Amino acid sequence: MPVPVPVPVPDLRIGILVRNFKLTISYDGTDFNGWQTQPGYRTVQETLEKAIAELTGEARIRLNASGRTDAGVHAVGQVANFYSATHHPAAVIVRAVNARLPADVIIRQAVEVPQAFDANHDALRKMYRYVIHDGSVPDIFLRRYSCHSRHPLDVAAMRRAAECLKGRHDFRCFETEWPNRMSSVRTITHLGLSRMGEWIWLDVEADGFLYNMVRAIAGTLMNVGRGHWPESQVAEILEAGERKLAGPTAPASGLFLMRVTYER
Amino acid sequence: MPVPVPVPVPDLRIGILVRNFKLTISYDGTDFNGWQTQPGYRTVQETLEKAIAELTGEARIRLNASGRTDAGVHAVGQVANFYSATHHPAAVIVRAVNARLPADVIIRQAVEVPQAFDANHDALRKMYRYVIHDGSVPDIFLRRYSCHSRHPLDVAAMRRAAECLKGRHDFRCFETEWPNRMSSVRTITHLGLSRMGEWIWLDVEADGFLYNMVRAIAGTLMNVGRGHWPESQVAEILEAGERKLAGPTAPASGLFLMRVTYER
Repeated sequence: MPVPVPVPVPDLRIGILVRNFKLTISYDGTDFNGWQTQPGYRTVQETLEKAIAELTGEARIRLNASGRTDAGVHAVGQVANFYSATHHPAAVIVRAVNARLPADVIIRQAVEVPQAFDANHDALRKMYRYVIHDGSVPDIFLRRYSCHSRHPLDVAAMRRAAECLKGRHDFRCFETEWPNRMSSVRTITHLGLSRMGEWIWLDVEADGFLYNMVRAIAGTLMNVGRGHWPESQVAEILEAGERKLAGPTAPASGLFLMRVTYER
Repeated sequence: MPVPVPVPVPDLRIGILVRNFKLTISYDGTDFNGWQTQPGYRTVQETLEKAIAELTGEARIRLNASGRTDAGVHAVGQVANFYSATHHPAAVIVRAVNARLPADVIIRQAVEVPQAFDANHDALRKMYRYVIHDGSVPDIFLRRYSCHSRHPLDVAAMRRAAECLKGRHDFRCFETEWPNRMSSVRTITHLGLSRMGEWIWLDVEADGFLYNMVRAIAGTLMNVGRGHWPESQVAEILEAGERKLAGPTAPASGLFLMRVTYER
């Protein structure tokens, strides 16, 4: 491992020296304890920050992501920005940082953006995908990237049951306790369920998500899909607004943060 | 872990008590040190034998596979047989053994076969698949199940170069030194190269394979595909019969034992 060159740390208040980079990042969440840095754990944020700082020679790089992802959750298109005084072009950052990263995280793209760009606050929508396999024999090669249902699922029933979730609602029934939230009202701008053979995927795009929201929706719809609950129950759960009425939180392995949309 | 019930070990010479089961097995080779039991290593054979013996209560189960696979090599349809005095129907063996297996190995099917069936000697053909990804950004989710080529590959050129490998030849040029072999003549009954987007797969079916043969063929054809070698060089290598002239042994992660064919 190359030792970082000790250079003076640029003062981030001197705006003229500092550039703002927007990164699009993929990671396999299996062996990470989520996005956010936590002492003693392997996290995506810390892994990336160290690799970038190693390249730029800066003492500390601070990555600001569109949002955290939990332990085991994957990302195809996580977005984060960081400030740096590096002179490297964005394309060089992609190649040189990727060369320093382990095999389960990669920067897909880096672009220089205006100083004001904030990957967290400027995110208009996020799209998550939840992947379910309902074949009778589990697929051992994709076990890290899906949730296996031992019951065959009726996707048409799940689709009808999910209709009521589209649009603006109070989604507190799908929120794992999280005391910091101000409001649990969100707008689901797209919700789709598809099947190809034994594979089912649930896409949910919204202007924001509550803690564990997609996994709670997936667990609830899987209860409908296996015939355990009537289709109408999802609307009743949403109406009642109680987490304990909804289905279980589906496993992290099936969840992917697919993309984050910003104003262009 | 349930303690195996101590029952008398059946004498395998008493044919009437002993049944012969043929298993079709999938495994993710990433975390196994290959098929064959080796003291101190995690192997597919030992993992399966222990799980089966735990179910049947027999002191030792001996799995006889169609052939060994190396460390890191995967199987979609490995075949092995074992003798047991168990009274369980084959379908129960599948379910009960799978419940005792770790997540990276699974029995897809078990059928009772005549005493004389031998998964190794009776195998007529085996089909291997080698999976290559030549996208500019490595696919981190499938990194365990493919080989990444940093150079875009010309599949049409690889296909033309591979023509000469079809049929019966002395394949010693693709054999990693292996002093026990009697003959290095084999017959390739099918060889196909396909591309879908950034994914390329090489299928090779033969009546038998030399040690590392498919990986050496893959490494050789990749040298052609990236334009490093002319197409004609493959025929020259085959003719010369020297391993050092052929390409490198491609990584184990891309190799899958797809199926084993027996007389019906």
